[in-house]
Amino acid sequence: MSTAAAVGYDSAMRLAVEHADLVKGSTYPNPPVGAVILDRAGRIAGAGGTGPAGSAHAEVVALRRAGHLAEGGTAVVTLEPCNHHGKTPPCVDALLDAGIASVVYAITDPNPTAGGGAARLAAAGVRVVRDVEADLVAAGPLREWLHKQRTGLPHVTWKYATSIDGRSAAADGSSQWISSEAARADLHRRRAAADAIVVGTGTVLRDDPTLTARLIDGRLAARQPLRVVVGLREIPSESKVLNDDSRTMMVRTRDPAEVLKALSDRTDVLLEGGPTLAGAFLRAGAIDRILAYVAPILLGGPITAVDDVGVPSIARALRWRYDGIDRVGPDVLLSLAPR
Amino acid sequence: MSTAAAVGYDSAMRLAVEHADLVKGSTYPNPPVGAVILDRAGRIAGAGGTGPAGSAHAEVVALRRAGHLAEGGTAVVTLEPCNHHGKTPPCVDALLDAGIASVVYAITDPNPTAGGGAARLAAAGVRVVRDVEADLVAAGPLREWLHKQRTGLPHVTWKYATSIDGRSAAADGSSQWISSEAARADLHRRRAAADAIVVGTGTVLRDDPTLTARLIDGRLAARQPLRVVVGLREIPSESKVLNDDSRTMMVRTRDPAEVLKALSDRTDVLLEGGPTLAGAFLRAGAIDRILAYVAPILLGGPITAVDDVGVPSIARALRWRYDGIDRVGPDVLLSLAPR
Ligand SMILES: NC(=O)c1ccc[n+]([C@@H]2O[C@H](COP(=O)([O-])OP(=O)(O)OC[C@H]3O[C@@H](n4cnc5c(N)ncnc54)[C@H](OP(=O)(O)O)[C@@H]3O)[C@@H](O)[C@H]2O)c1
Ligand SMILES: NC(=O)c1ccc[n+]([C@@H]2O[C@H](COP(=O)([O-])OP(=O)(O)OC[C@H]3O[C@@H](n4cnc5c(N)ncnc54)[C@H](OP(=O)(O)O)[C@@H]3O)[C@@H](O)[C@H]2O)c1
Repeated sequence: MSTAAAVGYDSAMRLAVEHADLVKGSTYPNPPVGAVILDRAGRIAGAGGTGPAGSAHAEVVALRRAGHLAEGGTAVVTLEPCNHHGKTPPCVDALLDAGIASVVYAITDPNPTAGGGAARLAAAGVRVVRDVEADLVAAGPLREWLHKQRTGLPHVTWKYATSIDGRSAAADGSSQWISSEAARADLHRRRAAADAIVVGTGTVLRDDPTLTARLIDGRLAARQPLRVVVGLREIPSESKVLNDDSRTMMVRTRDPAEVLKALSDRTDVLLEGGPTLAGAFLRAGAIDRILAYVAPILLGGPITAVDDVGVPSIARALRWRYDGIDRVGPDVLLSLAPR
Repeated sequence: MSTAAAVGYDSAMRLAVEHADLVKGSTYPNPPVGAVILDRAGRIAGAGGTGPAGSAHAEVVALRRAGHLAEGGTAVVTLEPCNHHGKTPPCVDALLDAGIASVVYAITDPNPTAGGGAARLAAAGVRVVRDVEADLVAAGPLREWLHKQRTGLPHVTWKYATSIDGRSAAADGSSQWISSEAARADLHRRRAAADAIVVGTGTVLRDDPTLTARLIDGRLAARQPLRVVVGLREIPSESKVLNDDSRTMMVRTRDPAEVLKALSDRTDVLLEGGPTLAGAFLRAGAIDRILAYVAPILLGGPITAVDDVGVPSIARALRWRYDGIDRVGPDVLLSLAPR
């Protein structure tokens, strides 16, 4: 007998978000979705996230784990259950077959082919509740996918590490390490979930980075994002970014729009490269999120994390809004979204 | 009959901190202390902060408000009750006279003349509990006073407003306003609680600021800090900083140590002036707290909030630690303490 307590829809959805975050990056072409099944009494009976490309959707994973406890229960899902035959049968069928009585979801599927799941469930007599923790999901696991659905373009996150006075290196150019081990571990988790990491030739020529996602013990993460180097110059064939740890794409342009075009089949792009490339993307309005790892140090001097962003006067400042402020070890991670 | 519930020592102490914060800046030469009296049943019976210079201490203010409810009750105080005759009789006497059964405090008085209160209370049969929410009080209302007791020097807070990329103005020099109205209101509250505001001649010559503490409606706050202008140059006699809104001191030096000496009878000093003066204080190790109002904007360009802080390479970075991260309207306020 289970002695677990019933949980509310909000906390079940937050658990679903955790499961979605765990599979982020591995679900292409499907979105990273999380699902939790509550039994009749409202207790957690199963949970899961979308399987790797083409395999089971989150609802199906969670239903399998719940087994017969799903009958008469509730499915709590980050995205409206799909209603179309892709590589797998519609999730709506799986939910109905399992005898689910209520479906609770955060985000309505904007995709016309997959959509309509809620209507079909309701028509079959299932109680449907939507918009539960919708903001959390929209700013969290589904952020990049929703952006792609809306705009047709990949979602670009500009990540940089900086001192509180906006420097990315000391006066002599030394910068290892500005941010803490905890911040670097956080970054590597984000790399492992991203589809591509973009830098300019300047960063490759100066720092010779590997641009891989690594685990805390230094080993390569199971999944590696595509490495992308932007710029007209050649880079040496022995550059680490060209090693066998992952694939690498050279985009010989200085136009951010062309970079986005070259990455149009990707969803989640991490822009990591230098002040020049960041400035070009900022001026072009091609950045959808800023992640600043701000170390509690002062450096002063001439090397700033970004130089020219095309702002002549305060009235023309690039205005964003904070959508997350977290401590990561001794550092602060500021997340910003366009205003 | 009161139907209020009993409160724990921690929440009573947090209320005492609020009362201390309210009187901060007005209690010289006494420290800004807050006190809460709980009745026999642990319910709030009275609360208050140190009165203006030379008048009642916090315990006495709170005891007066509690009246006979103090009997058999508990006094919750941010600082160990004093045991000496200054302008007022010892607080220990007032607590014993009121029939207080327990005394709870955060910080032991480091001052040998005032100290010993706890021992005398215990000897008189009062139950004494100390170190309750000590970190909160030490980083909060008593921060500057404790620093002064420890070092003999005023506590210097360097405040600046910046974009996330470390700029204090756009390329053309325009900077009004980088930070939000909410951040400016927060700053004016801090000014009203400070003993002195310090800027360099550069800020006066370029911006002609008034450097007063103002209320939200624009009127002058009741209490104005001393205005201090540092540097060798003359400033025009019509400079706003010389108007009648408050007093102004010229310190004709470029040496931070001399500035501290000139302010040795002060406790809470706010350094607001320009990159040059801030850099000089940082290089001299003369800053005890950094308060950065970080607006969610990007400016780029050459005007940074601080220039030379004497750091040649990353190994010599000035290392601090975050001791507070808050949202202030649309901005973030980072507070840092030396590591
Ligand atoms: N703090 C951090 O988070 C961080 C992150 C990355 C790098 N960095 C630092 O940044 C430094 C490198 O700076 P960087 O600015 O040279 O690196 P970068 O921005 O990665 O690369 C600059 C290059 O990008 C190309 N490019 C692409 N679009 C461009 C455009 N619209 N306009 C001009 N050039 C464009 C140009 O290459 P071509 O000339 O080949 O066309 C240019 O030289 C390194 O010291 C590195 O440590 C810091
Ligand atoms: N973002 C913010 O929070 C903020 C705050 C304040 C000001 N600002 C901006 O800062 C700009 C003014 O910059 P600033 O650097 O000229 O102002 P500043 O630092 O206030 O004043 C500079 C002057 O301070 C004197 N000084 C004192 N100690 C010194 C030392 N050790 N070394 C050199 N000089 C010393 C010098 O005056 P003498 O030459 O007379 O000796 C120097 O010219 C203005 O545009 C203002 O808007 C921004």
